[in-house]
Amino acid sequence: MAACTELTDDRAQEFFDSFDTVLFDCDGVIWTAKSAIPGAQETLKKLRDLGKHVIFITNNSTKSRIQYAKRFTDFGLGKVSVNDIFCTAYAAAHYLKETLKFEGKVYLIGESGLEEELKLHNISYTGPGPDPVVGTQQDWLQIPLDPEVKAVVVSHDIHISFVKIFKAASYLSNPSFPFIATEMDGRNHYPGTNIVKPGTGCIINAVKTAALRDPILVGKPNKYLFECIQQRHKGVVADRTLIVGDSLGTDILLGRNCGMKTLFVLSGISTLEEVRHNQASNSVEDQKRVPDFYLPSIKELGDLISKIKL
Amino acid sequence: MAACTELTDDRAQEFFDSFDTVLFDCDGVIWTAKSAIPGAQETLKKLRDLGKHVIFITNNSTKSRIQYAKRFTDFGLGKVSVNDIFCTAYAAAHYLKETLKFEGKVYLIGESGLEEELKLHNISYTGPGPDPVVGTQQDWLQIPLDPEVKAVVVSHDIHISFVKIFKAASYLSNPSFPFIATEMDGRNHYPGTNIVKPGTGCIINAVKTAALRDPILVGKPNKYLFECIQQRHKGVVADRTLIVGDSLGTDILLGRNCGMKTLFVLSGISTLEEVRHNQASNSVEDQKRVPDFYLPSIKELGDLISKIKL
Repeated sequence: MAACTELTDDRAQEFFDSFDTVLFDCDGVIWTAKSAIPGAQETLKKLRDLGKHVIFITNNSTKSRIQYAKRFTDFGLGKVSVNDIFCTAYAAAHYLKETLKFEGKVYLIGESGLEEELKLHNISYTGPGPDPVVGTQQDWLQIPLDPEVKAVVVSHDIHISFVKIFKAASYLSNPSFPFIATEMDGRNHYPGTNIVKPGTGCIINAVKTAALRDPILVGKPNKYLFECIQQRHKGVVADRTLIVGDSLGTDILLGRNCGMKTLFVLSGISTLEEVRHNQASNSVEDQKRVPDFYLPSIKELGDLISKIKL
Repeated sequence: MAACTELTDDRAQEFFDSFDTVLFDCDGVIWTAKSAIPGAQETLKKLRDLGKHVIFITNNSTKSRIQYAKRFTDFGLGKVSVNDIFCTAYAAAHYLKETLKFEGKVYLIGESGLEEELKLHNISYTGPGPDPVVGTQQDWLQIPLDPEVKAVVVSHDIHISFVKIFKAASYLSNPSFPFIATEMDGRNHYPGTNIVKPGTGCIINAVKTAALRDPILVGKPNKYLFECIQQRHKGVVADRTLIVGDSLGTDILLGRNCGMKTLFVLSGISTLEEVRHNQASNSVEDQKRVPDFYLPSIKELGDLISKIKL
């Protein structure tokens, strides 16, 4: 059972000797919506100087790998190769192409990141953009479905609409059509405000309810993104890998499920109180949502590197 | 345990002697989207001639009681008093006014039926109609919330949008604001087609996911609509009441939970195969989804009245 102890100077040497690869979640760990988290740039540099392979693994499905690479430079975090970025837009397209050997058109509830990844995987699609109800029920119930569509991908989409849910559920009435979803993140409650931004899980749950089917979820805590990493980078093995994340239910759970080392940072969505609740719980599922270590943020991880022998 | 036997001539006398009040579900029992189900008019007349009190109880939240009364005349089913119509739009407004003694404005995800019932209950509201995302995330995250809003009602709404889910979840971040929902009906799959119309449950599940809260559901199988009937019509008692419905999970379950007689008709959403599955199940919840009797449709109920002594 993991202990969730604070990572302190006296454990630093042993800790940094225990992994070769670091998987960083992004939102709430590397950056917020507006800027890099203080210390992120320095910590990433120090880890690379230590010889660690730094990889980014995010459930945020609104951007493609190329869009994420641009964000690293925009936020002053330097150049990151698209080969070291694993996002759910990529995972959805990759799963269709490589795992399912899918041929046909996708009905997509999603944004530009997924469009870009589908294009890069040579998968045609229809669906993105506004699609509001027009006319009476008799009108929109007769909207023709595209006969080339053979799969449905559901992801974050600010243009979610009744017509989109209607189309997705209607396509999914064919049980042979795969139903792929990116991630179930439910919401983002901005601390200290009454602002709650809906997450992709809202959209997926709406479609699930109409389709009466469960999707294949490619995002964390599903192991699929880690399998993609291992396919791309042959040397990556779980027991020499550290995952750093702010979400107990996605990052830490994925790490525990795969047998990685797990480091929880307090700069994002989950809290230490939740960890303590999970530790006290009798549920095996809760106990998997307990990390090995925690730190306030990515900055303190870099600070610790200064304390060890190089 | 209920048996789900076909209601036949030899049982008719005993059956019609066993109740004074009949609650009819509407969609799939009295009518389809376009017209009355054959025999509905005659059966309703015969039941009234027998001295039965005929009441209508529907989960469909798109219409008010006045709109339903008009539908009865439009479909050639004669004049029905609004006092004998109990719909979830009414139930939501009534629950706010009578049970919660609610004062303040409602944020409404809903259609004209709910607007009309809220007006009739002197409850102000905001929300209906199209409300699409406009501008960037920075723009819509700063949409001002209405300080007078003190409750959220979620119901069927063909204009469901990301902004509506965002506003509902943000209001519901105040734990003292009631969260009322009409019914969880998930979908309507048109038999023999690939057309799946999303139900209110899709919208409610999207809001639930963002709000991290469960709503108070006023529709069937919740007993609240039956409590409304008993408040209005003092003589109605469950063990002298028959409920006639096409949905095992709403109509039959409500009837069984309240101790009514239950008649399942095959003209709508549920099937006899589902009943047989529920009968064979070890789950108490499944076994409550088994009716006392079944008939092909409302027509055969009227036919049976001709076979009994008056």
